[in-house]
Amino acid sequence: MNTAPSSRTQVKRGASKASYDPALLHAIVDAAYVCHVAFADAHGTHCIPTACWRSGDYLYIHGSNGSRMLQRLTEQDCCVTITHVDGLVLARSAFNHSMNYRSAMVYGRFEIVAEDAKRQTLVDFMEHLAPGRQAEIRPGNDKEFAATTVMRIALAEAACKVRTGPPDDDAEDMHIAAWAGVLPLGAARGTPVPDAYCAQPAPAYVKDWATS
Amino acid sequence: MNTAPSSRTQVKRGASKASYDPALLHAIVDAAYVCHVAFADAHGTHCIPTACWRSGDYLYIHGSNGSRMLQRLTEQDCCVTITHVDGLVLARSAFNHSMNYRSAMVYGRFEIVAEDAKRQTLVDFMEHLAPGRQAEIRPGNDKEFAATTVMRIALAEAACKVRTGPPDDDAEDMHIAAWAGVLPLGAARGTPVPDAYCAQPAPAYVKDWATS
Repeated sequence: MNTAPSSRTQVKRGASKASYDPALLHAIVDAAYVCHVAFADAHGTHCIPTACWRSGDYLYIHGSNGSRMLQRLTEQDCCVTITHVDGLVLARSAFNHSMNYRSAMVYGRFEIVAEDAKRQTLVDFMEHLAPGRQAEIRPGNDKEFAATTVMRIALAEAACKVRTGPPDDDAEDMHIAAWAGVLPLGAARGTPVPDAYCAQPAPAYVKDWATS
Repeated sequence: MNTAPSSRTQVKRGASKASYDPALLHAIVDAAYVCHVAFADAHGTHCIPTACWRSGDYLYIHGSNGSRMLQRLTEQDCCVTITHVDGLVLARSAFNHSMNYRSAMVYGRFEIVAEDAKRQTLVDFMEHLAPGRQAEIRPGNDKEFAATTVMRIALAEAACKVRTGPPDDDAEDMHIAAWAGVLPLGAARGTPVPDAYCAQPAPAYVKDWATS
């Protein structure tokens, strides 16, 4: 499980933190609302954040048909990266300071999701964001679907890198009288803010948002 | 203030959300612990997360001298992106769902920070992470500084994009009986975890971590 699927996914720096385990990759993708997509065109290399979701062994993104990025992504390989920062790691020397994190990099070529599958994948996306909500709202109409491109990339050529745990100090620094440990970071969910014109009671995915 | 500094920073999709205000750019960078850097080499386009900090009108990153990324970044322009996801925006139609976010994209070429300035910039970085900590720990030694490259990119050719506020529903959807509003997201700070061998009292930046 810990063999890189390709030469460009072979982690070289901090290789002990590398993992090629699909279950870890899926967990990192599922915890994300956005990914960063790197691609190139005549103007240079770009790094664009966009909403993402997973279904099976694919990562999905969507956007307007007119999007420059979506057009380019069918023509070339790209790199999709997701990063969760889990904490600041405070060591007894400046040099050994670090961060705890979980990151995933996926290489490959996006493909356009065909018209018939597109509608179901967008329902999957809604289910990921707010389980049960699709049945409450107005679903997409033909014009909206026609304006939307959905693309997917296989989660095949990928690498994860994870750091967890306390600082890794040099033995000769252990006597230093500095606090050492981890300052945790994570994703916070705040109290839902109803729209000014909303008279509806909050469904479970709203009521439980800040505490789940 | 709302004029793009170059053609490649001219936001085309959702241009009403674009800003080229340096104060906003600085605030987005200062709120980040990591950025994503996109660059290309013979193996393709890469998107690599790395720690970052700001000093003046530059964004700084650092790493091992042997880092492939740092070597490439002196040879070519790249794109550095920072994204903060602030909430899920739940509209009355599937199509009008959105996210609230603050993002910044910076284009340009990194330059290596010269040896004499390097040590001060790393002190700036520590001050950004944990104010006052630099005086408590063992500072870098010559060997550690020699192994570390610090690079900076001007915050000159940049664009920000921000969405805030409630859903933007179509007028004809306002009667739909679905909860509508924003599910806020943000960065959470957890209770500090002291290292098993740490007998030091927590300084202010640790004690106040989870509440500040």
